[in-house]
Amino acid sequence: MKKFENFSEWFDEILFNAEILDNRYPVKGFAVYKAWGSRIIKRILEILERKLEETGHVPMLFPLVIPEDAFAKESEHIRGFSAEVFWVTHAGERELEKRLLLRPTSETAMYPMFALWIRSHADLPLKVYQSVAVYRYETKATRPLFRMREFLWNEAHTAHRNWEEAEKQVKEAIEIYDFVFKRLGLSYLILRRPDFDKFAGAVYSIAFDAWNPDGRINQIGTVHNLGENFAKVFDITYEDIDGTHRNVTQTCYGFGVSRVVAAIIAQHSDDHGLILPPEIAPIQVIIIPIVYKEVAQEVNIYAKEVYEVIRREGIRVHLDDSDDKTPGEKFYYWEMFGVPVRVEVGPRDQKERKVTITDRVHLRRRVVNIEDAVKAIRDLFDEVERELARRSKIILKELITDASDTSSLNEIIKGRKIARVCWCESIECAEKIREVSGGEIRGYRIDVEEVPERPCIICGQAAKKVVYVARAY
Amino acid sequence: MKKFENFSEWFDEILFNAEILDNRYPVKGFAVYKAWGSRIIKRILEILERKLEETGHVPMLFPLVIPEDAFAKESEHIRGFSAEVFWVTHAGERELEKRLLLRPTSETAMYPMFALWIRSHADLPLKVYQSVAVYRYETKATRPLFRMREFLWNEAHTAHRNWEEAEKQVKEAIEIYDFVFKRLGLSYLILRRPDFDKFAGAVYSIAFDAWNPDGRINQIGTVHNLGENFAKVFDITYEDIDGTHRNVTQTCYGFGVSRVVAAIIAQHSDDHGLILPPEIAPIQVIIIPIVYKEVAQEVNIYAKEVYEVIRREGIRVHLDDSDDKTPGEKFYYWEMFGVPVRVEVGPRDQKERKVTITDRVHLRRRVVNIEDAVKAIRDLFDEVERELARRSKIILKELITDASDTSSLNEIIKGRKIARVCWCESIECAEKIREVSGGEIRGYRIDVEEVPERPCIICGQAAKKVVYVARAY
Repeated sequence: MKKFENFSEWFDEILFNAEILDNRYPVKGFAVYKAWGSRIIKRILEILERKLEETGHVPMLFPLVIPEDAFAKESEHIRGFSAEVFWVTHAGERELEKRLLLRPTSETAMYPMFALWIRSHADLPLKVYQSVAVYRYETKATRPLFRMREFLWNEAHTAHRNWEEAEKQVKEAIEIYDFVFKRLGLSYLILRRPDFDKFAGAVYSIAFDAWNPDGRINQIGTVHNLGENFAKVFDITYEDIDGTHRNVTQTCYGFGVSRVVAAIIAQHSDDHGLILPPEIAPIQVIIIPIVYKEVAQEVNIYAKEVYEVIRREGIRVHLDDSDDKTPGEKFYYWEMFGVPVRVEVGPRDQKERKVTITDRVHLRRRVVNIEDAVKAIRDLFDEVERELARRSKIILKELITDASDTSSLNEIIKGRKIARVCWCESIECAEKIREVSGGEIRGYRIDVEEVPERPCIICGQAAKKVVYVARAY
Repeated sequence: MKKFENFSEWFDEILFNAEILDNRYPVKGFAVYKAWGSRIIKRILEILERKLEETGHVPMLFPLVIPEDAFAKESEHIRGFSAEVFWVTHAGERELEKRLLLRPTSETAMYPMFALWIRSHADLPLKVYQSVAVYRYETKATRPLFRMREFLWNEAHTAHRNWEEAEKQVKEAIEIYDFVFKRLGLSYLILRRPDFDKFAGAVYSIAFDAWNPDGRINQIGTVHNLGENFAKVFDITYEDIDGTHRNVTQTCYGFGVSRVVAAIIAQHSDDHGLILPPEIAPIQVIIIPIVYKEVAQEVNIYAKEVYEVIRREGIRVHLDDSDDKTPGEKFYYWEMFGVPVRVEVGPRDQKERKVTITDRVHLRRRVVNIEDAVKAIRDLFDEVERELARRSKIILKELITDASDTSSLNEIIKGRKIARVCWCESIECAEKIREVSGGEIRGYRIDVEEVPERPCIICGQAAKKVVYVARAY
């Protein structure tokens, strides 16, 4: 299986063999997260939630179901989501008086409560988060982790005194996501979406677009400034210091947990299987004894000693001393699961009180003394982490290519890459771009100011923005 | 508000004021878990999940929705649940081809997958758990935490080679739950439910029935031996060592997270508000500086020093140096939130390098030197934990009263207590017990063998079991 030649098949094999997810659940777009996947997800959420707590967000849990009237309050929001919501209409044998929808996102579950909780400026800012599953009836082909009808995310919602404070919050949210994604070694573009593609109900939207081996963008996070749009319809007001009553200004942001797992697999893994950043690896070190008949006992005892030395340092280590596989089979097995460091313990290692350690990225072996093992393993963790980030960054750079005319644009998109084009900001030219290339305008960078040096790629008029065009999940 | 006089009002006030849950969500039976509640829940789950992992259970996450045909496979199961499931019938504007139900429990979501995963005896035992919300359209009056249409739980499902191994698993499950509930200081009866009240689809059911100040039982956990009932209909078979193909034997057990929170509040808290066992308290120690104008600065500096001394020991401590409340108001405020230990720091404490510490159970103050503070706090944690468990145990004992005839039975149940009666095991007498008293037979103890010393309380024939009768949530 080849990552860059047949991404889709390669990806599905990893999901299945590394026990991330089983896609055979009998409802389309719904799948089972298996143990290895669940553990990875738990660690990703730990990093994110710690960061959210440090920045003053508090955890809450809002109901899954939203009454139809609350959902319908914000007109753009309902227009954006109504085609893809699941409706609960019955309970037992009876029809419900009020239809309920499964949250596709939680604005309309949360904001009626915000209106009850917020009274004065002293109640602001309000910064709330929850890690839950959301439900969207995707009509495009579903893809495990990338596009599912049930997917896992973390969503944060905030309320502020005014636009300036909401703008600061948008910056903080971008920093939080950037911090977490970087910790996971991911590479992406931080783009402001064109107006026609912003979140339904937002003033504007920022997105984290991660690269994928098949050239399709994987949106792993979004941050929205909602202005007063929801505050007006949900009547979320506060009494300011001067006694006047004002609407709050709101932001919200979503961290796509399922898609982040997809990005980690897609960006970091190789033709041997998964490769996990050590921080989120359920097992960080796998010890494999290489036993021969006459010295089996000594080697096994020594392997247990090595296990204890590593374990007591707080490293997540597992000793695979099962006898149902050969050492070679065990190598392949744990490579598939992406364990960052392998420790072999053979008769020679035992005799010389050494261990043979191998990193999962380069599969380079080296021999160290047992007393240096923990230090060497920690160094390898750092190396794996750095190397994953470095490789990913290079590929993102390589994927981005300037397009000066529609034929080169078309070629880039067909070649599974990301095109950088100059655009006049008209919706007509945006549509034309999609028509000629099959790619979509994803937006312009906000971390770097890029000044258009050519006219609009479609109409030849003065360009206003340098934008990125790609196909997307 | 009085816990034992008006339980319901007292309970609702604590939920609201201690920011556990807001019951004003506009869908009946659904509520918002606020920050304090969410944090308590997270810590409870940590204790439980750690224990499940230690005993070889692996985390997974199964879909929320179950297709109707899978749900309908086990006939007793569907009979037990069909009246109370929520149905998803539409998505966007279109009607779904196959109706989906929201999981009321996950047997029928999990077991089709078990059938795919289990091939041979080497795949057994399979021990899986997930912490999720489940959905039941309760037709009785809903009560926050006790009886909701959306409630949080942890469910574990296991598959084994035979009945003996399943029986061992039932024992392990009971030990796990007993361990966690004890850690939380709860008191309860472990009862085998009468056959007419077992889980729909089980061979038999064991339940953990916690006491409540209003005399109503709060079922906080259940353990079921499913035998081969589900294996037969979901075709979960394995090839045994001798080459024969057999059905697996299954168990499942549910830990009612929402109800455990209810039990912690109901059993431990008092008329000042919440009292939390230190292990699950989001804040374990609250420091309140008592400042007077002339020495305000010194006291505040000293309070920060005390904060650092406690914090660096890994204790969850918060310094409330806000100036919007008087010290007295702060005392009340943090008592409501159930923080186990309060540390006051006044001018005299500062001068003498002492602190005044108070436990939340007895509100007894004592003065210790700053260098002894951490030790004194840890001792108080132990004391609070022991004391909560001790008090709860005494009340459970006091609540249980022997009933030898129907009039005393009636009196006990009306008096909000738990009756201990002798029963012949006939369903007619069980119904009669409910008729005359309003209480239900909850079952007989499995941790202690109790031999009936009187005839059946209803028919006067030989009794087979000593059972507990109470009203229940």
